[in-house]
Amino acid sequence: MKTGTIHGVGLGPGAQDLLSVRADRLVRSARHVAYFRKAGKPGQARRIVEGMLRDDVIELPMEYPVTTEIPVADPRYNALLAAFYAECTQRLAALTGTGEDVVVLCEGDPFFYGSFMHLYTRLSGQVSIGVVPGITGMSGAWTACGQPMTWGDDVLTVIMATMPEEELTRRIRDTDALVVMKIGRNLAKLRRAVTAVGRQDEAYLVEYAAMADQRVTPLREAESVTPYFSILLIHGQGRRP
Amino acid sequence: MKTGTIHGVGLGPGAQDLLSVRADRLVRSARHVAYFRKAGKPGQARRIVEGMLRDDVIELPMEYPVTTEIPVADPRYNALLAAFYAECTQRLAALTGTGEDVVVLCEGDPFFYGSFMHLYTRLSGQVSIGVVPGITGMSGAWTACGQPMTWGDDVLTVIMATMPEEELTRRIRDTDALVVMKIGRNLAKLRRAVTAVGRQDEAYLVEYAAMADQRVTPLREAESVTPYFSILLIHGQGRRP
Repeated sequence: MKTGTIHGVGLGPGAQDLLSVRADRLVRSARHVAYFRKAGKPGQARRIVEGMLRDDVIELPMEYPVTTEIPVADPRYNALLAAFYAECTQRLAALTGTGEDVVVLCEGDPFFYGSFMHLYTRLSGQVSIGVVPGITGMSGAWTACGQPMTWGDDVLTVIMATMPEEELTRRIRDTDALVVMKIGRNLAKLRRAVTAVGRQDEAYLVEYAAMADQRVTPLREAESVTPYFSILLIHGQGRRP
Repeated sequence: MKTGTIHGVGLGPGAQDLLSVRADRLVRSARHVAYFRKAGKPGQARRIVEGMLRDDVIELPMEYPVTTEIPVADPRYNALLAAFYAECTQRLAALTGTGEDVVVLCEGDPFFYGSFMHLYTRLSGQVSIGVVPGITGMSGAWTACGQPMTWGDDVLTVIMATMPEEELTRRIRDTDALVVMKIGRNLAKLRRAVTAVGRQDEAYLVEYAAMADQRVTPLREAESVTPYFSILLIHGQGRRP
């Protein structure tokens, strides 16, 4: 019997018409659609494709056993997630064994800080698996700002706000253009780091880029951020005629 | 009279079905389509949309007066390009003045090292102008490698191989995941820099990502590269359960 294929499909930053044509076709025609979400929440990937799925679609929500309740450094965090990914892997592999294809919905681009990568590395070599790249959340964010991001020979650095303040400061000082993700609880620390290198007036916070509730705020005016969908940007100012 | 709008439309890395649904609609319905190209060449942006344009489309090729014939540090380079962008700006603005919309084709994402940015900054505030983000060439490249790019708290650095060797080496040492563009004549220097920090076995060269002639080569096996469509990648190996 023919076995199925798993497609990790990048959905882009949030607007339905920012899916690629290839992703749009796969999502609309899929009989089995899997996606990650926090238990009890609809899930952002699923929210993006609302109204696009087949009437007879079979949905496979994969609910994280833990998100922010346990610190990532705690060994229990890793153990819980490893067991979870193993279980998801098994479910998806079993489906392909019956000849069914599965579309795994991925926000942004699947290979750029995506949860799908945990399935991909476990399934590669075992089953047929493909990836459709997507427009990243950071592209959505800099487009929302209405300002070009990188010019000429600009260096772009992408970092997570979870890193220690000293390291954060050093890296913000050492780049032309900057993207910071995972801001949530780290906003005060991030603001101190940006201010320490004198770039506080160049920094913008973008929330829900490319979605209906998109919001761009200069960092100096921001009081808090949406925990999950926030990106901080400093635009490059490189060489140009 | 109603004035027209200029749309800077990201085409993604090269495959037609990696245009976003929004970009696909704009390109297929456009009456006026503008794009940059080297004089005498078809131009990569135009090549991507081959067969997608309306029968009665009016094309506006914008031909660079200079590409690599004059070093970028030479003042004549800047003067020639500044005059060129001013002229392009005028042509596009004149068209919108007659009520016509124009789609400007942009490889990858328009705000990520794109030539369209030179028009955008000159036209903003003067005419109605919009941007459709696209899948970047680097997303196309890491998807071609079949290996996730950034995990957990990985730092991603994007640099141009044009920078001095010492600076290149320092930055390659100081990042988890790496993207290098503008490789062409700088391959030998780039190889020395990657080797100096002991990462030569982790590095891949991707040429023509997402196109029919896509090619992934480990850096240690690469002898030369396609001047324009080459990206070097080192994948992050960050935290994962």
